[in-house]
Amino acid sequence: MNPKKIEGILSRLNEGKIAVSEALEMLRTLPYEDLQFAKLDHHRELRKGIPEAIYSPGKTDEQILEIAGRALARDDEAVFTRMNERTFQKLKKKFKSEVKWYPQARIATVGVSKRPSKGKVLVITAGTSDIPSAEEAAVTCELLGCKVERVYDDGVAGRHRLTSNLKQFDAADAIIVLAGMEGALPSVVAGLTDKPVIAVPTSVGYGASFGGIAALLGMLSSCSSGIGVVNIDNGFGAGALAVVIVKNKYAKI
Amino acid sequence: MNPKKIEGILSRLNEGKIAVSEALEMLRTLPYEDLQFAKLDHHRELRKGIPEAIYSPGKTDEQILEIAGRALARDDEAVFTRMNERTFQKLKKKFKSEVKWYPQARIATVGVSKRPSKGKVLVITAGTSDIPSAEEAAVTCELLGCKVERVYDDGVAGRHRLTSNLKQFDAADAIIVLAGMEGALPSVVAGLTDKPVIAVPTSVGYGASFGGIAALLGMLSSCSSGIGVVNIDNGFGAGALAVVIVKNKYAKI
Amino acid sequence: MNPKKIEGILSRLNEGKIAVSEALEMLRTLPYEDLQFAKLDHHRELRKGIPEAIYSPGKTDEQILEIAGRALARDDEAVFTRMNERTFQKLKKKFKSEVKWYPQARIATVGVSKRPSKGKVLVITAGTSDIPSAEEAAVTCELLGCKVERVYDDGVAGRHRLTSNLKQFDAADAIIVLAGMEGALPSVVAGLTDKPVIAVPTSVGYGASFGGIAALLGMLSSCSSGIGVVNIDNGFGAGALAVVIVKNKYAKI
Amino acid sequence: MNPKKIEGILSRLNEGKIAVSEALEMLRTLPYEDLQFAKLDHHRELRKGIPEAIYSPGKTDEQILEIAGRALARDDEAVFTRMNERTFQKLKKKFKSEVKWYPQARIATVGVSKRPSKGKVLVITAGTSDIPSAEEAAVTCELLGCKVERVYDDGVAGRHRLTSNLKQFDAADAIIVLAGMEGALPSVVAGLTDKPVIAVPTSVGYGASFGGIAALLGMLSSCSSGIGVVNIDNGFGAGALAVVIVKNKYAKI
Amino acid sequence: MNPKKIEGILSRLNEGKIAVSEALEMLRTLPYEDLQFAKLDHHRELRKGIPEAIYSPGKTDEQILEIAGRALARDDEAVFTRMNERTFQKLKKKFKSEVKWYPQARIATVGVSKRPSKGKVLVITAGTSDIPSAEEAAVTCELLGCKVERVYDDGVAGRHRLTSNLKQFDAADAIIVLAGMEGALPSVVAGLTDKPVIAVPTSVGYGASFGGIAALLGMLSSCSSGIGVVNIDNGFGAGALAVVIVKNKYAKI
Amino acid sequence: MNPKKIEGILSRLNEGKIAVSEALEMLRTLPYEDLQFAKLDHHRELRKGIPEAIYSPGKTDEQILEIAGRALARDDEAVFTRMNERTFQKLKKKFKSEVKWYPQARIATVGVSKRPSKGKVLVITAGTSDIPSAEEAAVTCELLGCKVERVYDDGVAGRHRLTSNLKQFDAADAIIVLAGMEGALPSVVAGLTDKPVIAVPTSVGYGASFGGIAALLGMLSSCSSGIGVVNIDNGFGAGALAVVIVKNKYAKI
Amino acid sequence: MNPKKIEGILSRLNEGKIAVSEALEMLRTLPYEDLQFAKLDHHRELRKGIPEAIYSPGKTDEQILEIAGRALARDDEAVFTRMNERTFQKLKKKFKSEVKWYPQARIATVGVSKRPSKGKVLVITAGTSDIPSAEEAAVTCELLGCKVERVYDDGVAGRHRLTSNLKQFDAADAIIVLAGMEGALPSVVAGLTDKPVIAVPTSVGYGASFGGIAALLGMLSSCSSGIGVVNIDNGFGAGALAVVIVKNKYAKI
Amino acid sequence: MNPKKIEGILSRLNEGKIAVSEALEMLRTLPYEDLQFAKLDHHRELRKGIPEAIYSPGKTDEQILEIAGRALARDDEAVFTRMNERTFQKLKKKFKSEVKWYPQARIATVGVSKRPSKGKVLVITAGTSDIPSAEEAAVTCELLGCKVERVYDDGVAGRHRLTSNLKQFDAADAIIVLAGMEGALPSVVAGLTDKPVIAVPTSVGYGASFGGIAALLGMLSSCSSGIGVVNIDNGFGAGALAVVIVKNKYAKI
Repeated sequence: MNPKKIEGILSRLNEGKIAVSEALEMLRTLPYEDLQFAKLDHHRELRKGIPEAIYSPGKTDEQILEIAGRALARDDEAVFTRMNERTFQKLKKKFKSEVKWYPQARIATVGVSKRPSKGKVLVITAGTSDIPSAEEAAVTCELLGCKVERVYDDGVAGRHRLTSNLKQFDAADAIIVLAGMEGALPSVVAGLTDKPVIAVPTSVGYGASFGGIAALLGMLSSCSSGIGVVNIDNGFGAGALAVVIVKNKYAKI
Repeated sequence: MNPKKIEGILSRLNEGKIAVSEALEMLRTLPYEDLQFAKLDHHRELRKGIPEAIYSPGKTDEQILEIAGRALARDDEAVFTRMNERTFQKLKKKFKSEVKWYPQARIATVGVSKRPSKGKVLVITAGTSDIPSAEEAAVTCELLGCKVERVYDDGVAGRHRLTSNLKQFDAADAIIVLAGMEGALPSVVAGLTDKPVIAVPTSVGYGASFGGIAALLGMLSSCSSGIGVVNIDNGFGAGALAVVIVKNKYAKI
Repeated sequence: MNPKKIEGILSRLNEGKIAVSEALEMLRTLPYEDLQFAKLDHHRELRKGIPEAIYSPGKTDEQILEIAGRALARDDEAVFTRMNERTFQKLKKKFKSEVKWYPQARIATVGVSKRPSKGKVLVITAGTSDIPSAEEAAVTCELLGCKVERVYDDGVAGRHRLTSNLKQFDAADAIIVLAGMEGALPSVVAGLTDKPVIAVPTSVGYGASFGGIAALLGMLSSCSSGIGVVNIDNGFGAGALAVVIVKNKYAKI
Repeated sequence: MNPKKIEGILSRLNEGKIAVSEALEMLRTLPYEDLQFAKLDHHRELRKGIPEAIYSPGKTDEQILEIAGRALARDDEAVFTRMNERTFQKLKKKFKSEVKWYPQARIATVGVSKRPSKGKVLVITAGTSDIPSAEEAAVTCELLGCKVERVYDDGVAGRHRLTSNLKQFDAADAIIVLAGMEGALPSVVAGLTDKPVIAVPTSVGYGASFGGIAALLGMLSSCSSGIGVVNIDNGFGAGALAVVIVKNKYAKI
Repeated sequence: MNPKKIEGILSRLNEGKIAVSEALEMLRTLPYEDLQFAKLDHHRELRKGIPEAIYSPGKTDEQILEIAGRALARDDEAVFTRMNERTFQKLKKKFKSEVKWYPQARIATVGVSKRPSKGKVLVITAGTSDIPSAEEAAVTCELLGCKVERVYDDGVAGRHRLTSNLKQFDAADAIIVLAGMEGALPSVVAGLTDKPVIAVPTSVGYGASFGGIAALLGMLSSCSSGIGVVNIDNGFGAGALAVVIVKNKYAKI
Repeated sequence: MNPKKIEGILSRLNEGKIAVSEALEMLRTLPYEDLQFAKLDHHRELRKGIPEAIYSPGKTDEQILEIAGRALARDDEAVFTRMNERTFQKLKKKFKSEVKWYPQARIATVGVSKRPSKGKVLVITAGTSDIPSAEEAAVTCELLGCKVERVYDDGVAGRHRLTSNLKQFDAADAIIVLAGMEGALPSVVAGLTDKPVIAVPTSVGYGASFGGIAALLGMLSSCSSGIGVVNIDNGFGAGALAVVIVKNKYAKI
Repeated sequence: MNPKKIEGILSRLNEGKIAVSEALEMLRTLPYEDLQFAKLDHHRELRKGIPEAIYSPGKTDEQILEIAGRALARDDEAVFTRMNERTFQKLKKKFKSEVKWYPQARIATVGVSKRPSKGKVLVITAGTSDIPSAEEAAVTCELLGCKVERVYDDGVAGRHRLTSNLKQFDAADAIIVLAGMEGALPSVVAGLTDKPVIAVPTSVGYGASFGGIAALLGMLSSCSSGIGVVNIDNGFGAGALAVVIVKNKYAKI
Repeated sequence: MNPKKIEGILSRLNEGKIAVSEALEMLRTLPYEDLQFAKLDHHRELRKGIPEAIYSPGKTDEQILEIAGRALARDDEAVFTRMNERTFQKLKKKFKSEVKWYPQARIATVGVSKRPSKGKVLVITAGTSDIPSAEEAAVTCELLGCKVERVYDDGVAGRHRLTSNLKQFDAADAIIVLAGMEGALPSVVAGLTDKPVIAVPTSVGYGASFGGIAALLGMLSSCSSGIGVVNIDNGFGAGALAVVIVKNKYAKI
């Protein structure tokens, strides 16, 4: 739309209907967004097919429904994170089969079409309680077009922590590691692989874990190289970063 | 310069040397800054005469000298905050009379010309130790074209705190209040005036003052209305906000 | 010393050297410390018609009802912030049409009469979840006599963040910007306008957002000039500061 | 169970059913838990030529000299970060031309040989004061075999922040963005590119910047996707992560 | 009971049944508590009539009932703080008229007898929401034998803050001041009186009030003299300190 | 180098110079890095009979049931900490008499068999509200094979704090001390005994107790010697550390 | 309304219905809000002879000298706290015998005359390193007219902590207890006496003592009754509070 | 001395010079310390030979010298921790050969005699920079009578972290593990051994390590069992706890 507006100005200049100075003034006084379009829009084109992600908490059900409706109306797609099931049910009731629901990941989508998948992301959790954030990361990767391999603890502290097969590390293009409590697992994994490690501190734990702060500080202070940290419980952010790394690897040389 | 580039594109379009689609493509692929110019540059024009402020700590003397030199070379001006005297001496030695020094405010300027002053800012401190930040605020206001009236404590806790004449409040267009320790003064002042109060927590104090945190939290939690808070010890920010408020009052109806 | 001064005034009055009105004026214009009452009352006169704002949480319904009743009894008005709907219903039931309810802003008022509006405040949110605090700010402005223009995100991260028309900035007398998460929007807005920007960190976000602390620290540390920060989620405080700035602009030259 | 597995391998070797090389391979490809050493060493082989990084503070000059001496003695190499110049001088005096010094980056190396460079990392700073950490990142990348393009602010707040040419983003394989104060720049950059962004909060700033905490929290809470955060001032960590991403891109499809 | 044990040892020594060295050894090997009794018990005698205070949260209803029952059984008394009404009802049901309930203070007592009251404590709140903690302080004073005068805000921010009659200050032996938000009131009061001021930060407020931390830091950093601070919301502690000060004043010269 | 070492062992086995058992022993006694598995398994053998501890919060009932089922299926045992009663009821319903429930400790076990008990652990609480964590510690000790002696406050602040019989200290092999609020009790106990003291800060308290932080910092800063601190409310960790100390004492000279 | 009241007084004076002294008294006894000055001045009269206390850090030597000079010029006195010796030497040089120096307390005074002493304050420290703050408290008490008894640790952790003679407690009117590290001493003392205890956390300690925060939190969370806390290292504040308590005891029944 | 006093009372009772009731009263009114002696002194006897530890920072050289002199005068011994070399030199100069100096541990002792050593403590550091605290721990153990085995990193991050021979673990009676940064090493060690692990967070690191806080929180939140944590950099505390554990093991069955 905005490119149209600019094209209109240029056409009128081309047709001699306005002078150069007039055209310049018109460009100058266009709203910020309109002028800005150039790279930005081009940019958006490149990202085409990547659904928008909406953080659901703090939004009313009505707002969620409207956002979903507008996305579908423009034949677009939307991904809602941290959605509670009650809101999903309303979404389901209204948009029927357009809605998909990933209950462990607390993600709902509307209008999302399949994307060809490229590359593989390994998602590892230190414990069973980290699974919701891990699923948020894994589903994000899958929605955005990466294959995912999951290595989740089965609930017994420590026993399976070190069992991740190194071959799995070798086969991945990026590794997402989630851990609460002391948050030491990303450090251990990064010490064993030369793949990019995305560390997700989780709010799992109690007392001096301080809702993920202990894990966050530990991951930031890690002695291992090759670790990028995202926000506490931010599965979506980890997934998106993994996808960015993987897509750059496969699409860009 | 960038407007020139765009003007050039438009001229070539106007002259029939390029087609509309070519012009559009050229605009689309211009660097971000160039396209963005429109409002931004216009914007800068309005601000003309406002010297750039450079936060000095963390910069080498060489960098400071180069920034000053470049500003003067383009017949521009620069304001350096939190400068130590040693660096000022080097600046003085090199740029001579182009340099002005406000030792209490720890501000040095190069190439700054007088501006007509409009409006009045009242700067109040809770204690003598708040004066360096207060002077940073006051000198900032004066450099940017406001008159300043100073009401500084003479070093005796509490005695002169409530003595500020209400008439001084009435005569000001904006009031900057600096306080360390518990930081209660802005609250008191805002309870007595209907002028905008800019609160500056200072790092004065010890123990549970936590280098200005007690004052900062107190100011943010104030029960009085009409207070905007800036960073701890941020005299420059307070001065700049006061000037923005005053300039809008006088220049814009 | 001051009692002496007052005694002197009284003696001169007693001796017939000055009239009662002169004595009153002399007392009224004594420095604040000497005779605080005068200005304070005068002061209150100037503010006349400004409803009192009561922070509702922590008050029992009975206390709220009593405060409202007393305000109405003295033909006064009251504004209740952060009110829950259940309390509002009790208020409504008792005071009927005297009560107005702004559900998004969570504000209820009793006895508030229209004020002539002057000046315009632009209220911008970074996201949909910031709307409750934004409405608290906007309704506060409207109740206190300013026009408000709202620019609220429609729920899609980032896309509309930069779309605020610069013309809207130009047309405003003060701009309130609300943002949670990293809280970067006020910085961006202040970089694009020379209007006073009032930054409101919101508790929107999770993990390292720490309930608005990340946004608060970011806004306080902003590199842009002309920003005053208020407490986390403090829509009322932002609105009141905007009104103070706007009223001073229009009423006072 | 695992000892059994290993015993089984040994028995078959003993019985001549498999060769030494087969037994070694079998041991090497056992799951991590069973035989951690294998992969680890193999792993180290892959990393061959990557110098060890030693964090210098807290080590005595004697320890630094000994570490350097031992590295050279085994014909190895070592990279020392955060070294002060006084220690470098001692190193220089003892190991002469074996030592290289990158003063802005505060990095000293011994025995480092040229590596063929692959891929390009863009290093961007928000301000001049961020340069030491930026140089630590940049030099790390160069030492580990990546080309680096630097875009450093020239000391004027804000003006050049948004000037980074989008073409530079397109040409990079990974982007390192350093910022102190509010730390908003990585968010802005990540909003404009689909390249992996590595965010480095720096301790530049004062007051509520809290030595990099404001920037750190802001970066973790960023609304933009595709950002991985490292420790405050951790230029080395950022460089190492960038190299891991770039090496995986070029060496591994 | 323990004095009995020691008396027994002494008697046996006196009766020549044991030697001095044996008596000394017996004393030496008595449990800590038994030997310690002397001053401690004497001490308790002096305090006679002061009911024990039990912090109720975290205790089961069964535990509360047992503690109350045991106190009554030994003809003693007990004061329960922060009790919820449900637990009180159980207490009431079981111990009938032995139980007294102070709902605003959330205090329940069993077996408390009247004490002659001495001295007067003034309890002041900054706001209506501070009343629960204020009542906890006031009821504590009354139970322990002091008269109390209450000056509670009626819900309108600021207006009545400074109206406390100075005569009330003069008539009090100690002043308890409760405030949330910025917590400035104790500072103001202490600036106006030479009576001991006990400052109670309350958890009233939001955002940067951080559940009473802003008020706590402000009170600790106060510039006024003569203030002792207690824990956030600690009405009981404030009341007990006031009583200690008042009792020492009247009982001890 | 290490692969060489292992290859050497394999070659010598291949050449018949050593037996399979010798090769296995050699592998087993290689430094940790070379062959981590060995010790680990051996290690697990030594610990045989020690049930696995599963932290229940954050796990779904389904996951709990599955973990319990799998443990029983392999004739193993499992200890679940911080279990709520509702989940226990499901466990009970499914696994019947295999399940044991310690309601105060919030611990459920499946398949745990009696262990011979050795040594004695003294568990002391500062207050009644500390009992849940104390029971978690005590039950952990008992499950892992230590006798426990409990000294719990009966709910009256201070009175019984110093009454712990020193003889009880003498009779214990390790002492666990739990305290909330200021957390001073471990310091007092450690000043009176030469037994190892394990300090458990609890989240009991309010205001500046900050959910156990005050107690935690106090315990870490204690002037008494011989104290090891565990996480806030971490009864299980305290119990496990006590058992480790006691088992080493009795099993290992 | 209040101006009316004052006008009425003035009119009656003018009409000869009341005398000047009556008018002055009427003004003096108006409620605080009406005529704040009166009480304030009267107030200051009562405090006569109490020297002003000036916190020296953050003030230049010139400012200190000027404050001292002005105090002497008006035949007044001044107390400077936290003064360094270098500044004292300048003060000494200029004002000679007018200056007194208390090196351990870091207090300097000018023009202070002897006051008759009343009451006794006991000052106790947990350790030798607490002595500077303890001396600040003790000297403050002595300057303001109280006798002081000092019980300072002689540097051996713990040994003399509990040795304070209970008789000393009985003989004191108020007890100041200073402690760093875990800060448990005030709690212990308050458990042994019924005198008001003023707790001073000191910044003595390291690590998790966090410069006095551990001690501060511990003191605020103390289970003992009758404790008022002042800021970290705030010897002056503790001394002033003790004096207020003592003076009220002796001067006021 | 105090036992003498009590013996005196008993003797006079024995000799019939006083009655039982008089003796009881005398005991009752003895100062706290005197009565308390019994167990406490006995206690001290048991500890005989354990030198007192004095934390040196915050003490003047004069105080240190006096403490040392008094210890020697009573033929006692003293251990000074965190001593700087300058103070040691003064100590050396005055007390000559009585003084021993452990420069890496920053420990000085006077009058310390050899103790027979029992048991072995393993001291492990994660990095070279942790050595000063490690030496403080190790020397403490040696002074108090335990053998020490040191496993210190030689300065290369990660490489030697996992190389600790499991045999060393087996041979130790207690293991002290020091780590800064993320502080993960104690967790790893405790996962590999069933010996008591004493974790010492060190202030080594930068940025989000926050002077040891990251390590402290990580150690407290560790998933491994059998870990007791001491204060940041508290080598002395770790050593003393290790000695308590070891002495109980060998001396007490």
